[in-house]
Amino acid sequence: MNIKQKGLLIVLSGPSGVGKGTVRKELFNLTDKLKYSISMTTRQKRPGEEDGKDYYFVTKDEFIKRIEKNKFLEHAQFVGNYYGTPLDKIEECINKGDDMLLEIEVNGATQVRHKLPEAVLIFLVPPTKADLYERLKSRGTETEEVIQERIKKADSEFPEARFYDYIVVNDNVADAAKRILEIINAEHSKRIRVYDEYIKMLKK
Amino acid sequence: MNIKQKGLLIVLSGPSGVGKGTVRKELFNLTDKLKYSISMTTRQKRPGEEDGKDYYFVTKDEFIKRIEKNKFLEHAQFVGNYYGTPLDKIEECINKGDDMLLEIEVNGATQVRHKLPEAVLIFLVPPTKADLYERLKSRGTETEEVIQERIKKADSEFPEARFYDYIVVNDNVADAAKRILEIINAEHSKRIRVYDEYIKMLKK
Repeated sequence: MNIKQKGLLIVLSGPSGVGKGTVRKELFNLTDKLKYSISMTTRQKRPGEEDGKDYYFVTKDEFIKRIEKNKFLEHAQFVGNYYGTPLDKIEECINKGDDMLLEIEVNGATQVRHKLPEAVLIFLVPPTKADLYERLKSRGTETEEVIQERIKKADSEFPEARFYDYIVVNDNVADAAKRILEIINAEHSKRIRVYDEYIKMLKK
Repeated sequence: MNIKQKGLLIVLSGPSGVGKGTVRKELFNLTDKLKYSISMTTRQKRPGEEDGKDYYFVTKDEFIKRIEKNKFLEHAQFVGNYYGTPLDKIEECINKGDDMLLEIEVNGATQVRHKLPEAVLIFLVPPTKADLYERLKSRGTETEEVIQERIKKADSEFPEARFYDYIVVNDNVADAAKRILEIINAEHSKRIRVYDEYIKMLKK
């Protein structure tokens, strides 16, 4: 039994290439209590993708209107397209008491820290820097130039860990996912989150 | 893999009668990575008890000398006897990187907060106040007067939860122990505990 409380917003981020997507998928295999925040984008829908499942697909005009109305928790531009996290879905979810996970780039996570300080920020890191470089190189689908750009990006992202609540090592996908689930569970027992409700409980 | 760090001092406390001892025993069934802090006392050794296993048994003179030399993390008097937590054993343990659990009364935990702010303080609570009263009454081994005293003591201890890091509900021993283990594991990923070592790791 957890003491009654709002849901948590869990932000999973980390340097480019660290394996956020893989760990996130494994985490969702471990629990059915977590909701996944679907991003909104202006990029073209790819074959097999579904609107409202993979992304919310909108036009550039629509996206910019939403930025102006402050309807994103965070947003960014990437290779000419916009990507953002709709704020209303998150508020609805956590007010209902459900936890929501957001898997985003390092840039976006910094925006979340400012807008929603009660969010739980988790930074996924490789066991060593050399290990991440290896991963980026071994993907094999990218040119040397793209690889060098991603290494440069990762290098600039590593120090951002200092703004996060937790640092989790992705030495092994199963262990990293388990560690994140333990963090989520532990956060639900934090005194600052449950104290008011605990005091109410004492009247029973 | 956890990032290298000092061991944690985990303090398990909570109101009189909440079931700290039972939950602690269950926790030690779940993990072999945790050391238990053995208290020092001036009370008589009971049949079956071992020095250095159940308690460190010392004389009142010896105990008072140790208080004067500031050799306790916390200490208290209870029914004419002294009880205390030897500081040297804890420092030795956490400097080696091992976690240590301390199961103590609410009074003692407040002393720990001041002396060792990096300790993780967990407050065990009953699902309701009525539930705790029931537990105290149903022990059956105590007189009505003793029961009323323990209820009064518990009542004065409930609000102390506000000085703790976590509040864990003991609705069920197995769940409470599991929740405490998750808290311990999550604490090992806290950025404030691992950041320096993470920065070193980046050089590899």
